[in-house]
Amino acid sequence: MKYGFAKRVTHMQSSAVRDILKVVNRGDVISFAGGLPDEKLFPIDEVKTAFDQAMSSSPKVMQYGETEGVPALREQLAERMAVKEIHRDPENILITSGSQQAIDLFARVMFNPGDIILTENPTYLAALQVFQSYEVQVIPVESDEDGMIEEDLETKIQQYKPKCIYIVPTYSNPEGKVWSLERRRLLLKLAEKYHTLIFEDDPYGDIQFDEETVPPIASLDDNKYVMYTSTFSKTVVPAMRTGWITGPHQIIRMMSQAKQATDLHTNSLTQHALVHLLREFDLDAHIHKLQKVYKERMHVMKDIFDRGGDTLPIRYKVPKGGMFFWVAMPESVNTKELLNQAVDNGVAFVPGAPFYVNNPAQNTMRLNFTNSEPEVIEAGMKRLVEVMSEPIIG
Amino acid sequence: MKYGFAKRVTHMQSSAVRDILKVVNRGDVISFAGGLPDEKLFPIDEVKTAFDQAMSSSPKVMQYGETEGVPALREQLAERMAVKEIHRDPENILITSGSQQAIDLFARVMFNPGDIILTENPTYLAALQVFQSYEVQVIPVESDEDGMIEEDLETKIQQYKPKCIYIVPTYSNPEGKVWSLERRRLLLKLAEKYHTLIFEDDPYGDIQFDEETVPPIASLDDNKYVMYTSTFSKTVVPAMRTGWITGPHQIIRMMSQAKQATDLHTNSLTQHALVHLLREFDLDAHIHKLQKVYKERMHVMKDIFDRGGDTLPIRYKVPKGGMFFWVAMPESVNTKELLNQAVDNGVAFVPGAPFYVNNPAQNTMRLNFTNSEPEVIEAGMKRLVEVMSEPIIG
Repeated sequence: MKYGFAKRVTHMQSSAVRDILKVVNRGDVISFAGGLPDEKLFPIDEVKTAFDQAMSSSPKVMQYGETEGVPALREQLAERMAVKEIHRDPENILITSGSQQAIDLFARVMFNPGDIILTENPTYLAALQVFQSYEVQVIPVESDEDGMIEEDLETKIQQYKPKCIYIVPTYSNPEGKVWSLERRRLLLKLAEKYHTLIFEDDPYGDIQFDEETVPPIASLDDNKYVMYTSTFSKTVVPAMRTGWITGPHQIIRMMSQAKQATDLHTNSLTQHALVHLLREFDLDAHIHKLQKVYKERMHVMKDIFDRGGDTLPIRYKVPKGGMFFWVAMPESVNTKELLNQAVDNGVAFVPGAPFYVNNPAQNTMRLNFTNSEPEVIEAGMKRLVEVMSEPIIG
Repeated sequence: MKYGFAKRVTHMQSSAVRDILKVVNRGDVISFAGGLPDEKLFPIDEVKTAFDQAMSSSPKVMQYGETEGVPALREQLAERMAVKEIHRDPENILITSGSQQAIDLFARVMFNPGDIILTENPTYLAALQVFQSYEVQVIPVESDEDGMIEEDLETKIQQYKPKCIYIVPTYSNPEGKVWSLERRRLLLKLAEKYHTLIFEDDPYGDIQFDEETVPPIASLDDNKYVMYTSTFSKTVVPAMRTGWITGPHQIIRMMSQAKQATDLHTNSLTQHALVHLLREFDLDAHIHKLQKVYKERMHVMKDIFDRGGDTLPIRYKVPKGGMFFWVAMPESVNTKELLNQAVDNGVAFVPGAPFYVNNPAQNTMRLNFTNSEPEVIEAGMKRLVEVMSEPIIG
């Protein structure tokens, strides 16, 4: 039988990254492809204790829960965000099944087919997937290393009247970029001027490598123009699938109603465990440890690139945080083809093209440095540098 | 600021049931409103052990997982479904965040605005919410206590060319009804004849009170026409938010891709815990215990109705399983108004109207008997019968 699918999914594609992950999970390929934290750094004993405490506290933690999320967790999140000067009431926080669901629910309640969203180019590809699935038109704005460029941004806001501007301004995926404070202020000013929403996706903000902290855009806003989402996936463990989003009450309320229909509520046993974890575990100390370890690994990767010197035809920026190196090869190189050679040589990365809204730079690639220990990074980079130094130009 | 929402959510309403739950959770109201299992019957120690085993097995259980679900769990589910003669490959099973998400993902990949689905009337209201959110037109089919009536069903299939027929054929919500085998076969025959899908929602199938088992419709199908979903929410614990769906490979594959964009994957720590639980815990023995206890509670409720005799102006059918009594008062009674009197008298139920696609019977109500112990049911029913016996007719 032939099944008739909805128009919204006819162009849906499986995530390039996840498909690559399936391939490289076999055998002895060293993978820099996924956006995975290192499971050896997971606070397993503490998570175990937290689940134990939650399950011992009351059978009610295993019962159906509120769609908005466990109240105690929302209070803790309000407190944690306040440290970053994002002051939001717990009632304006919605717990989601990872921050991916925050993007999806937001898109679901906001966008009609044909509505417009502005993004950077490249940007987080699974956000692009969500927008495409709601038939939203994604328009890229020119950026440099400090963020979107004022003139192009204002021109495109005027021209396209976007409902929203989606960005990952802090240690971005895939570029590892940080928006300057000035550009953050500018973006917010334009959002206010043209009554456009900003969606600040901040999964990596805590994975910071240098002293200089740039404030989240949400901290500059009076809860009118900025939706802010983050997650415990990079700082605690991904398998818990617990993220959150905060923003104007009307929107959070509408998203909660949509969430009722979507999955009733996020796994509340896990939410209760997180309540205990945040109470008894020094998550900030753990985050400092992650910062230190991941920074070292970033430097292992960087040093190998640098040692390559002129024989290694690449350009990159040193990431100030996050989980990725974004690398450009000479324009004659197609990294999708290079990936085949790389996998043959026992190493994998993600080609950069799928992260682009349009005009993909086929010579780019994303490398993850958080999931592998230094000696594995060295071994993998050796294999990668071999391939990079003599790419077969297609 | 005024925010412009998507057309699909402009008519979205918060679930009547969940709103009532919020009210009745305060104070000393005895609630028959929610569809809650009894948390005193949760296998807490076993769930605790299962989480402990999962977390001790490998740090990988806390890492990102596959969108389709943990392979070992999908294998166990294939085995469990095979006992019910539903023979499906694990690769045609998708793990979802509760069976609610199975309904949502199915709707997301199948329906364009204006597409048509046939349902019973009344039916599961949160499914109606999902369909409405995708702007699907829901057409009710006439039913009696054995299921949809052949003539009306075939006429409406011919007239409306529905993409799907959604049903809860076993211990339905809200009616507590079981479709006869004959009607199940008939439905499948018509689905085959007209190339229409059947969505068999089976959250309550295990909560069975008598010996007679009617086979799931999926067990009669060669994995061509029937989507089948169920959940651990009623048999293990709801807070885990773990359900599953099986059906034709093309559809399951498309739903998996949609799930990537929606929430990447369902909480995999919980999935791994379920793998251990299903290995080491006799879930079937536990289900037998639930059947026994819930059947007793159903009888406590029934006996009080019966004692009311002629002075109690109600009609009901004895449920053969599931979690609900569906009760009709005289037509002059509006149960939404009666609810106010009931809550004043310290007891709550769900008025029947929101479960209807159209022509709501305002005199109906749904009573849950699984969440309260017998003495609480007695106390609550005493309060309810007082209100029922002398309703203020509006």
